[in-house]
Amino acid sequence: MTTASDLLTSFGINGVASVVIIGLFSILKNQPLNARVYFAKWQLKGEKVGPTGSLPAGTGIRRYINLDAKSYIHVMDWIKDCLRMPEAELIDHAGLDSAVFLRLILLGLKLFVPLTVVGFVVLVPLNVTDKQLSNDLKDKALTYDALDTITISNISTASRREYRNIVALRFTFLALQIARPDQFTILCRCIPEDPDEPIATHVDHFFRVNHPDHYLLSQVVYNANDLAKLVKRRAKLQNKITYLQGVMDKKLKPARPTVKTGYWGLWGKKVDQINYYDDEIAKLTDQITAERMRVLTEDKAVMPAAFVSFETRWGAAVCSQTVQSRDLSKWLTEWAPEPRDVYWANLPIPYHRLNSRRLGMLILTIVLVIFFFFPVTFVQGFANLQQLERNLPFLKPIVELDVLKSAIQGFLPGLILKIFLLALPYVLNIMTRFEGHVSYSRIDKYAAAKYFGFMVVNVFLGNVLVGSAFEQLKEFIDRPTQIPKTLAQAVPMKATFFITYIMVDGWTGLAVTLMRLIPLLLFHFRSALMVRTTRDLERATPVGTIELNTALPQLGLYFILGLVYAVISPFILPFIVVSLGASYVVNRNQILNCYEAKYESAAAFWPHMFGYIIIGLLLKHLTLIGLMALKEATSSTPFLLPLPICTLIFYLYCKNRFEEAFHSYALEEAKAKDTIERAREPDLDVRAFLENAYIHPTLRSVVAGNDLAGDESDDDGAD
Amino acid sequence: MTTASDLLTSFGINGVASVVIIGLFSILKNQPLNARVYFAKWQLKGEKVGPTGSLPAGTGIRRYINLDAKSYIHVMDWIKDCLRMPEAELIDHAGLDSAVFLRLILLGLKLFVPLTVVGFVVLVPLNVTDKQLSNDLKDKALTYDALDTITISNISTASRREYRNIVALRFTFLALQIARPDQFTILCRCIPEDPDEPIATHVDHFFRVNHPDHYLLSQVVYNANDLAKLVKRRAKLQNKITYLQGVMDKKLKPARPTVKTGYWGLWGKKVDQINYYDDEIAKLTDQITAERMRVLTEDKAVMPAAFVSFETRWGAAVCSQTVQSRDLSKWLTEWAPEPRDVYWANLPIPYHRLNSRRLGMLILTIVLVIFFFFPVTFVQGFANLQQLERNLPFLKPIVELDVLKSAIQGFLPGLILKIFLLALPYVLNIMTRFEGHVSYSRIDKYAAAKYFGFMVVNVFLGNVLVGSAFEQLKEFIDRPTQIPKTLAQAVPMKATFFITYIMVDGWTGLAVTLMRLIPLLLFHFRSALMVRTTRDLERATPVGTIELNTALPQLGLYFILGLVYAVISPFILPFIVVSLGASYVVNRNQILNCYEAKYESAAAFWPHMFGYIIIGLLLKHLTLIGLMALKEATSSTPFLLPLPICTLIFYLYCKNRFEEAFHSYALEEAKAKDTIERAREPDLDVRAFLENAYIHPTLRSVVAGNDLAGDESDDDGAD
Repeated sequence: MTTASDLLTSFGINGVASVVIIGLFSILKNQPLNARVYFAKWQLKGEKVGPTGSLPAGTGIRRYINLDAKSYIHVMDWIKDCLRMPEAELIDHAGLDSAVFLRLILLGLKLFVPLTVVGFVVLVPLNVTDKQLSNDLKDKALTYDALDTITISNISTASRREYRNIVALRFTFLALQIARPDQFTILCRCIPEDPDEPIATHVDHFFRVNHPDHYLLSQVVYNANDLAKLVKRRAKLQNKITYLQGVMDKKLKPARPTVKTGYWGLWGKKVDQINYYDDEIAKLTDQITAERMRVLTEDKAVMPAAFVSFETRWGAAVCSQTVQSRDLSKWLTEWAPEPRDVYWANLPIPYHRLNSRRLGMLILTIVLVIFFFFPVTFVQGFANLQQLERNLPFLKPIVELDVLKSAIQGFLPGLILKIFLLALPYVLNIMTRFEGHVSYSRIDKYAAAKYFGFMVVNVFLGNVLVGSAFEQLKEFIDRPTQIPKTLAQAVPMKATFFITYIMVDGWTGLAVTLMRLIPLLLFHFRSALMVRTTRDLERATPVGTIELNTALPQLGLYFILGLVYAVISPFILPFIVVSLGASYVVNRNQILNCYEAKYESAAAFWPHMFGYIIIGLLLKHLTLIGLMALKEATSSTPFLLPLPICTLIFYLYCKNRFEEAFHSYALEEAKAKDTIERAREPDLDVRAFLENAYIHPTLRSVVAGNDLAGDESDDDGAD
Repeated sequence: MTTASDLLTSFGINGVASVVIIGLFSILKNQPLNARVYFAKWQLKGEKVGPTGSLPAGTGIRRYINLDAKSYIHVMDWIKDCLRMPEAELIDHAGLDSAVFLRLILLGLKLFVPLTVVGFVVLVPLNVTDKQLSNDLKDKALTYDALDTITISNISTASRREYRNIVALRFTFLALQIARPDQFTILCRCIPEDPDEPIATHVDHFFRVNHPDHYLLSQVVYNANDLAKLVKRRAKLQNKITYLQGVMDKKLKPARPTVKTGYWGLWGKKVDQINYYDDEIAKLTDQITAERMRVLTEDKAVMPAAFVSFETRWGAAVCSQTVQSRDLSKWLTEWAPEPRDVYWANLPIPYHRLNSRRLGMLILTIVLVIFFFFPVTFVQGFANLQQLERNLPFLKPIVELDVLKSAIQGFLPGLILKIFLLALPYVLNIMTRFEGHVSYSRIDKYAAAKYFGFMVVNVFLGNVLVGSAFEQLKEFIDRPTQIPKTLAQAVPMKATFFITYIMVDGWTGLAVTLMRLIPLLLFHFRSALMVRTTRDLERATPVGTIELNTALPQLGLYFILGLVYAVISPFILPFIVVSLGASYVVNRNQILNCYEAKYESAAAFWPHMFGYIIIGLLLKHLTLIGLMALKEATSSTPFLLPLPICTLIFYLYCKNRFEEAFHSYALEEAKAKDTIERAREPDLDVRAFLENAYIHPTLRSVVAGNDLAGDESDDDGAD
């Protein structure tokens, strides 16, 4: 069991660690040497923001290290700086996804700061005095009840308003956007085969007939996955050559490097490495040219899917929202993702296989969730010192030290959980890609949903519920009415564990994120060896991105913890508030200075996030009902029973009222934007602008005319 | 407990009753006198089908009574006759709704005839021999299992094929339809108020801007509910006058009738009745004219809803399927119902109240379902003879008679349940109307869903589960894993009860329906007293309609009984098969000869019916799992567990794959029909044909130009 002193140790370790890392970051950030790491976004934009920005460009050592003592006084000003930019400008600078993500953190603060205040003013004194007055439980229950009512109405109003605001933001954002190809384009799948004409012509005819006034052009989807692999391999080799040449230029090695030609360079003839790679590249280039021809000419390489573009946004909006064919499994249309958001590798998957793939991944996720319990429990047991001593007796003298003991008890459990969770997103991402979503934004969204499942079941329930998870599960299925009571018994006992988890994840973890240690090292390594031209420097600049697939579920977990513990054990709230506050500052800094969005989904993830909050509310209600039943405050239990039902109704209401905004583009909006654009730019050539927008990146150069430059393979998605 | 001899008595009573009634019907049907009752539909069409049709029109007594002895030999030929018409012709004659309803009965036959055969060939011998070999339960379980697999795969394929067929029928039906106003029209609700212009202009402008190429005209919805009430009251008075004059003409009463002027004719001055009613009608006519002017001129009478018509089906299909405004709760569009299908009284209900109305009715339905147990149990207990003797001791000598005893035990429980269920549809219909659906077809569909809830919970579960329903319910919520076992224990014991229920409902009940006793009497009463002109005769002709709101759930119950008992107690299957066969013949006869569809929803009820079948399958699975667990055939239980899950997946698959066809009109189809029509009738004036289609029936004459004829109030829907 974690005790109060363990908690204090953990507080000490995490507090000190965070402060030290943040201090280090503030100093590192102040060095012109690191500007490309900590101001990556501005550097790429060509704007000289950062330590060199405010100073006259130094010479010599000053180009690398900041010797201006005055600037160290203001070393913590970055916090002020990053909070300064207004939201509208932020949306412009970093996109709506990032801005909405920040709003969500703010939403958390708006909910939990008042709850903390109420909790400490009302509940803590009540709990303290309650020890003497244990007979008037009823009073306490009523206070719980009243508090809970406040909490819930607060959350409902706040989240409903937030929903409306985000919908409004989304529409405004879409209305203000410049003409983007995805506004005019839909993705059509399940195109039936026609014996008389190839798919491209068939698509063209179909839309020319059924959308005669608005149809513009269509671009069939090629299965260029093999081609993408070749291009990728060539890029890798080119990278290696650059590196080797860098090493030689710097004379770090005496002779020209050699390599064996067999697999993995382990056996075979020894040859000169650079020459060998050059030959390989030449071979690959030939293969690529051949494969490209094959893809473009062979009928089999054409998939029954196409990007169909319209002359107006109205036409595209109509086509994406309507049923095209009487066979409902044919000619399925949906709004096209942005060109950079398209996950090309999934487009060739036959549509009818998607269902079974999704089902398979659902089952696999459930299996993973269940089996994830084992390693966590095992390693957690290890962190239990009695067991550790028994298993590894030679550690006994060390472990017996009181300080170390506290450190291990207070720090390790949270850390172990965090480490296990770190590996998870990669697995979940691969699984979600396999499901066949056609855009990165959707892959992230559904990977996030799976991760959230882990957060709820493994992190929250798994740590709350004592005893074997399987037995508990069986018990739950057998007697579901016992769930609230079990929760109510277990939840209060685990408050300290979650406090250490929050400190590890929300304090130290955030500080590490802020620091960007790995990008920093990588950048210096690269710039030492591989950078010769400005383009090389640009490619070496480590631009990050918010990993929404993990950031959203983590935020969701904080909501759950805050909501569930708000009434039961408000001591956890200040830790959450500090975490959220820090998260807001850190994420805002990263978004402003060094993150570049991979795609712009216009906050398409919000409905999921709203669902997470609702799940938190439901867990809260269940726990509260169980608590009332346990304390036999039966007079107030019946008043609590409608709570989860009302929450569900509220969820359905919001879903009904708002969610369509995330799937469909309102015709009124589309028409208005069309009209305004026609007035402003009467001779905008939509065709020219759409013609090459949705071509597989490895084919783009060929189709566009110039055959040679073929390495825009950064986003071919074949990994 | 119902015993085998009770069952035999019930069989005797119901068998004899059905045969007698059907015989009576066959003779009555043969009389020209009754042609307007039994061939109502043909008579209204002006075709002389029926006993006068095949014979030379008789004179004198022959006009009323069939004296041709030869025709009595072929008196049962109506069964052959009514089975003769092919489906395509039937659809043409009676509409798709009726044809699909018949298909559903056929689907039941297709499922249960093979099951009966298999059941009697495999299961019955097994059950008989099993008494000696009670130790090899495992074998039996495996046979169950195998049989069940056959059943399920049979049902899945059959219902999936049926789904596809019905979707195909629906599209073909829509494609073959002549131009109907609802193909070009959508219903737009939640029109926001505009300070500058009235609603009619606002609607016009909105659609002119956002659907410029296809918009034709719009017709706002007036709140004419008060007007409809006045018109209805006038019609009632006119009816009374006709009746009184009929009585006077026939000289059935000596003096002119008088009436008191107070409420309900109970007090006040005595006046001449006919003159008094004439005065009242004159007054009402003035009021109607005034109210009509008010509705048409006052702004308040205009509701924020409008029927919007387009020049092409394509335009209407697009508008009905798309989101119009960025505020998702404004400008909601849906496909308009047929003009005759519109339930005008509900159109003025503000849209935002619909959710709370629906929620309220949902809660009321649940409460009704729970409290419906009490009277049924109470009256059922009465039918229990021991109790009856105790309560009413004077009945003892009668009740002790063995024949009577069997009659009561075997006949009463089914009959009592049936009587309670007879009153229910009216209540449910009123409740569903209150929910605010805008068309009769939808009211029927949702009333049917509620009625089906009663069928499952009160008829099926309520009779299966012994003991107090509430206790059982509490037990179920506490320990859901016990549901299958409880079902498995109770279901086999109740087979005889359901057999009597099926005989009462499916044999005698159907015969009574066929007979049309009440319409027959009413028609003869009316034609004696109130019919003077041909138009009066037409209005007196009793055209019925299939009551889909009760017919569908009843069919659903038969599916449930058949599926659940198929493996457990196949003795019930022949009764179901006979019932379904009779139902097919009877309904086909009624649909062909005397039912006229109130509306044509193109089989919009099928997705619900499909859901009923799935619920039957799920209940079957649960019972079977419980049975296996009870018999401890644990080796086969794990194989059964995935069954309900697979069924759910199958349901979701079908829903995904087909259901959209019932909400949206595919653009390809719409375009094709537009094109064909333009080629066939190049100068069809769509505007003229749509202009007055969607006007409230009490206003139609005014808007159309002639102010006087204002009694097309048959479908004003103000009841």
